[in-house]
Amino acid sequence: MTHSQRRAKLCDRLQSASLDAMLVSDLNNVRYLSGFTGSNAALLVFADARPAVLATDGRYRTQASRQAPDVEIVIERACAATLSLRAAEAGVGALGFEGHVLTVDAYQGLTDTLSGHPNIALVRASGTVETLREVKDAGEVALLRLACEAADAALTDLIERGAIRPGRTEKQVRNDLEAAMLEHGADGASFETIVAAGANSAIPHHRPTDAVLADGDFVKIDFGALVAGYHSDMTRTFVLGRAADWQREIYELVAAAQRAGREALAPGVALCEVDRAARAVIADAGYGDTFSHGLGHGVGLQIHEAPGINAKAAGTLLAGAAVTVEPGVYLPDRGGVRIEDTLIVGNGPELLTRFPKELQIL
Amino acid sequence: MTHSQRRAKLCDRLQSASLDAMLVSDLNNVRYLSGFTGSNAALLVFADARPAVLATDGRYRTQASRQAPDVEIVIERACAATLSLRAAEAGVGALGFEGHVLTVDAYQGLTDTLSGHPNIALVRASGTVETLREVKDAGEVALLRLACEAADAALTDLIERGAIRPGRTEKQVRNDLEAAMLEHGADGASFETIVAAGANSAIPHHRPTDAVLADGDFVKIDFGALVAGYHSDMTRTFVLGRAADWQREIYELVAAAQRAGREALAPGVALCEVDRAARAVIADAGYGDTFSHGLGHGVGLQIHEAPGINAKAAGTLLAGAAVTVEPGVYLPDRGGVRIEDTLIVGNGPELLTRFPKELQIL
Repeated sequence: MTHSQRRAKLCDRLQSASLDAMLVSDLNNVRYLSGFTGSNAALLVFADARPAVLATDGRYRTQASRQAPDVEIVIERACAATLSLRAAEAGVGALGFEGHVLTVDAYQGLTDTLSGHPNIALVRASGTVETLREVKDAGEVALLRLACEAADAALTDLIERGAIRPGRTEKQVRNDLEAAMLEHGADGASFETIVAAGANSAIPHHRPTDAVLADGDFVKIDFGALVAGYHSDMTRTFVLGRAADWQREIYELVAAAQRAGREALAPGVALCEVDRAARAVIADAGYGDTFSHGLGHGVGLQIHEAPGINAKAAGTLLAGAAVTVEPGVYLPDRGGVRIEDTLIVGNGPELLTRFPKELQIL
Repeated sequence: MTHSQRRAKLCDRLQSASLDAMLVSDLNNVRYLSGFTGSNAALLVFADARPAVLATDGRYRTQASRQAPDVEIVIERACAATLSLRAAEAGVGALGFEGHVLTVDAYQGLTDTLSGHPNIALVRASGTVETLREVKDAGEVALLRLACEAADAALTDLIERGAIRPGRTEKQVRNDLEAAMLEHGADGASFETIVAAGANSAIPHHRPTDAVLADGDFVKIDFGALVAGYHSDMTRTFVLGRAADWQREIYELVAAAQRAGREALAPGVALCEVDRAARAVIADAGYGDTFSHGLGHGVGLQIHEAPGINAKAAGTLLAGAAVTVEPGVYLPDRGGVRIEDTLIVGNGPELLTRFPKELQIL
């Protein structure tokens, strides 16, 4: 889908919501709708056929015209204020804004800017673009596939050359993995890579340290590759040397829960029901308390985006959504296991992270 | 300075501003005041001696108690709402909040949460913690030094092994540089590394592509290392093979402007005056239009933080601030030069990025 087609979809939403235009200030939303990737920008999208207007500052003059050739470009550091005035001058009455992005201070600034224009009203339109982004188009799925392939290939490299072994540190493994992702075409890591060995694996979001990997350790690795703005997300947990019975037990339990979660993925299924399907497996085995986070989340231009998959989530899965399924069991001071994939929801979900999930003893 | 000493400084500010407590929701501010580094948190700091309260979710239970042992910890996903209720129940009247961080929707959520508590009022206290963060304490300067040293060492490695040469791509150089920073102790890159060759060097914030470096190219490299949350920031520009006269001219011009900017750094000097000192050098040579961004910015837990150093900046430099000085000249479709250092403001600034700035022909 072209950026122009995405903006046309937004126009439909604006018309349904009786908005004359929308001020998009979230940078991922700006990128989604225009292609522009700079760090300071806003986009004004009219509900009718008038061309969209992109505001950014002088650093990005050349880049903006290359990346977003089919919108009007305005160079002005105060992007949102400039575009809100532009909307007022264009006769916009109801101007949607992103209340989940705009800060209290920025909103105050906009109302000050518009104080001489009584005919324009700021109307909250939070999440409008994110709802469009929830269903990935073919180009987005292609980029997510590339991101997941880069992560798969990098982890495979590390295993093949024995980089995950007793004596190495969490940080060394992290460094190798991030370098390998770059070699396999990633633009970078999609978030701070987690390498957690031994008791550290019981910390769901552990940061790599100089802790040395040892025989008998769990090694939990949660990481992703970034490709053209799209994030992959995968967790695998290994055992070094020899697996104890308790390790095999919780590994197989998490694997069974993860399978149940994946099998529950289908268009129209309630999000909380997907969470429940996996969580019940862990709870039935008596480990319910140790699974301390939601089952998964959407992934795309952000590492965490709509939909959230957890016990309190409202709504249902949409066909074409990209989501993670990542149950875990964490035993404080002993160790933990998480197994996570990124998938595209469909009739039979498409598995994007294809690295094997059987317990591997390294 | 300990986290507790930093909170004591904040207490003084709160008392001066007649606030009974402050709800800190910016994650860097939470980290600065408590040591906690998780991705979902808020911190309630009382103006009197009562212990601070940190809220985070279940993923971070173990991490929070390790990183922030001297604050009370509450496990609850809705961090800000939980702490605002806690403040109301503790008898707080004026509760400061971060209007530059809290979104319009989050603010609405807080006012809904507090609707049954008429005695508490939300009072904007935007930038209060950032003002404290502007002056770096000894521990912060030590981490900034480490970050800058890792970046210096990485770039030195690349030069020594001839990794920046015709035939290689921008992305390959980026990959090598990021891997080298990790080898030299960085936790990661402090922002998306810029490697811009040939005409791409005229784009101030270019993202690395598969463009191949060629003889006669400028190669502009803007990058930094992240160490324990602290960012370094440095730009160097090289020429490959042989420098043309126009390249030598703009290189020496930018170097002179950068020197003028560094020499203007002193406690008490107006921020706009520092910008002017460097900008005048470029403007006097007739290239004023081509220097399309501010001269510099503060750097610390964020890659861009207070103070901004540009023509419109109010305020003065503080002793102990960490700032960049980074003038540039960009000639569209031909090439550009930027030279950037990170320094600590003092009587005679301390240069943290020590890689040489003489024109190097590679």
